[in-house]
Amino acid sequence: VTARRSDAGRPPARFIGDLDTPVALVDLARLESNLGAMAAVARDAGVAHRPHAKTHKTREVAERQLAHGAIGLTVAKLGEAEVLVDAGFDDLFVAYPLVGPLKLERLVALLERARLRFEVDTLDGATAASTFLAGQGRRVDVVVSLDGGAGRSGAASPEAVVDLAERVAELPGLELVGVMNYGNAYGTSDPETQASIGRREGEDAVAIAAAMRARGLRADVVTVGSTPTARHAVKVPGVTELRAGVYAFQDLKQVSLGPATLDDCALTVMATVVSHARPDRYVLDAGIKALAGEDYGWGTWGRPQARPDLAIIRATEEHGVIELPPGAADPGWRIGERVRIIPNHACGAANMHDELVAVDGERVVERWPVIGRGRFR
Amino acid sequence: VTARRSDAGRPPARFIGDLDTPVALVDLARLESNLGAMAAVARDAGVAHRPHAKTHKTREVAERQLAHGAIGLTVAKLGEAEVLVDAGFDDLFVAYPLVGPLKLERLVALLERARLRFEVDTLDGATAASTFLAGQGRRVDVVVSLDGGAGRSGAASPEAVVDLAERVAELPGLELVGVMNYGNAYGTSDPETQASIGRREGEDAVAIAAAMRARGLRADVVTVGSTPTARHAVKVPGVTELRAGVYAFQDLKQVSLGPATLDDCALTVMATVVSHARPDRYVLDAGIKALAGEDYGWGTWGRPQARPDLAIIRATEEHGVIELPPGAADPGWRIGERVRIIPNHACGAANMHDELVAVDGERVVERWPVIGRGRFR
Repeated sequence: VTARRSDAGRPPARFIGDLDTPVALVDLARLESNLGAMAAVARDAGVAHRPHAKTHKTREVAERQLAHGAIGLTVAKLGEAEVLVDAGFDDLFVAYPLVGPLKLERLVALLERARLRFEVDTLDGATAASTFLAGQGRRVDVVVSLDGGAGRSGAASPEAVVDLAERVAELPGLELVGVMNYGNAYGTSDPETQASIGRREGEDAVAIAAAMRARGLRADVVTVGSTPTARHAVKVPGVTELRAGVYAFQDLKQVSLGPATLDDCALTVMATVVSHARPDRYVLDAGIKALAGEDYGWGTWGRPQARPDLAIIRATEEHGVIELPPGAADPGWRIGERVRIIPNHACGAANMHDELVAVDGERVVERWPVIGRGRFR
Repeated sequence: VTARRSDAGRPPARFIGDLDTPVALVDLARLESNLGAMAAVARDAGVAHRPHAKTHKTREVAERQLAHGAIGLTVAKLGEAEVLVDAGFDDLFVAYPLVGPLKLERLVALLERARLRFEVDTLDGATAASTFLAGQGRRVDVVVSLDGGAGRSGAASPEAVVDLAERVAELPGLELVGVMNYGNAYGTSDPETQASIGRREGEDAVAIAAAMRARGLRADVVTVGSTPTARHAVKVPGVTELRAGVYAFQDLKQVSLGPATLDDCALTVMATVVSHARPDRYVLDAGIKALAGEDYGWGTWGRPQARPDLAIIRATEEHGVIELPPGAADPGWRIGERVRIIPNHACGAANMHDELVAVDGERVVERWPVIGRGRFR
């Protein structure tokens, strides 16, 4: 991470008012509370926690997660694994199919310094990885995966996963160690439906593991996870590992799903009011390049922490526009005033920033380089 | 920009097949054609071109724009200006209200090395900037701005802009040099409506300039611009400067508006097929962290250049999912195959990458650091 020029020659910021904007702030008390709550979910269920580091992409949050009892970290891409191994973490699950010799070469290099496993979800992908890794004299841990409703990676049915597992177990270069599932409760805010999706996530994974064992295959790892399903999935007996990620920061998406609340949201983007040319409109200096572009179909890109009834209703690259709906109280912000925005998606927002500034109230405590930012390869 | 680890120890890529994915590619022939076309629009109208560098954020494209006759560059943020001044560019328009002492300090520092002007759109903002700059013994060029339909910065009406101009002209520390407008033709693909918006953009700016001159104020600069309105706005007599940006790369948004075509799209994100567990679904290793999150309400996040009838219909952080609609021909992609995706928004997509790889067909020509990435302060 290169030095931020906006700081050049200035004394270190002591308070958030000293920081130039837009800037991503992490409230340490809220972070700690979120980390503790999810650690308790895993601990109370007797399940290991391997939090997904894609949310924060920082050494500092990962260290706190380990301090709360996490056994290691989950990442989506090898690039994230590389920077985290450089930062001293040595037990990582790449919850992603690793495809192609360029990726597998990098995996082999990383194995010198860390314990790694990865996801396989197709026989073609597994076979290619097997050929490469066996050719290098390696044997790498893998888990087979089920598409638990997210509609992305994962075999199409529990039966397909078990069939895949049988074939993978025969391949050299791969050591099949278990099964992965990812439930998708992002389509509902109904607590009962979420609970049902979470239970199903766990039950499917456990059933696959049982079928694998019945065929003489290893299934030590039964890994599930997602912040909205975590509490439910971990309670299914036989689940061994949770991979929740966004819980560390929470965000408007999680609030929309419940049970996170606005007071749980630890990440905000502090912006400055730069224009107020109409009485009902405030323009902030944070657009999609600071907040990320995801609007989840809401037509809004974040809400002021102090006025969550208002929203950014238009976001272009460098402008975030708040307009007062009829009847809304005017916040009376002046040009130059700072407004902290809770982003829709904390993972996406953190990824736009080279650093996160850890704060205790208004006090700047630390500055954390987002070492995983842009590590999408 | 730090070294990308995925290349560590590898020989330089000669062909795009040597590159790890996801990776942003810029087709040099298409880029050159786009740059030439917009340069001709400005030249034919006798208008100066000051392209918006927020699209590419690179030294190399900016140099090509100057080679095509651009008189300087436009940027949105001081952070972009700083890296471009470091890269040798010395005539920049910060088309943004600069608010707060931290920003103005940086502006003053930059003035040692470059000619700069910036936007003022409120009296409060102008007064604060005036106080700061006059206190430093500086006098900096500014333009007053009109909200030409984008609903972000800019005074609310031509009359309000002229009134603002009269007040700004009296303020120390600011040298009023003209007027800025930004037409918003993003809501329509009708050519006549777009032309009408473009003409109005130019006419409003010219009328404001005339009213300013009638009150004895300077209005040397009459700057307009946006890729969809450019051809129309520059034809209005009295317009002096065009600021179009995304034309350099074009993208699906511009194609949706016309007159850009898919063949004009110079920026693609090359991805790898990493999963194909269902016959009608292909999963790519490019999600919103490589493509950007903006979906413009389309529910799609990019289209394969070779199969623009297909689209990424789900994008999470690291997964881009293409599903075949009923009746669509199966592309028959295999695991490991590369697919080049045209992004919805080229500016947003380029901003996700630390480098753009310039290509001539399949040949890698140069690698361009995205020096302006993340410079949103």
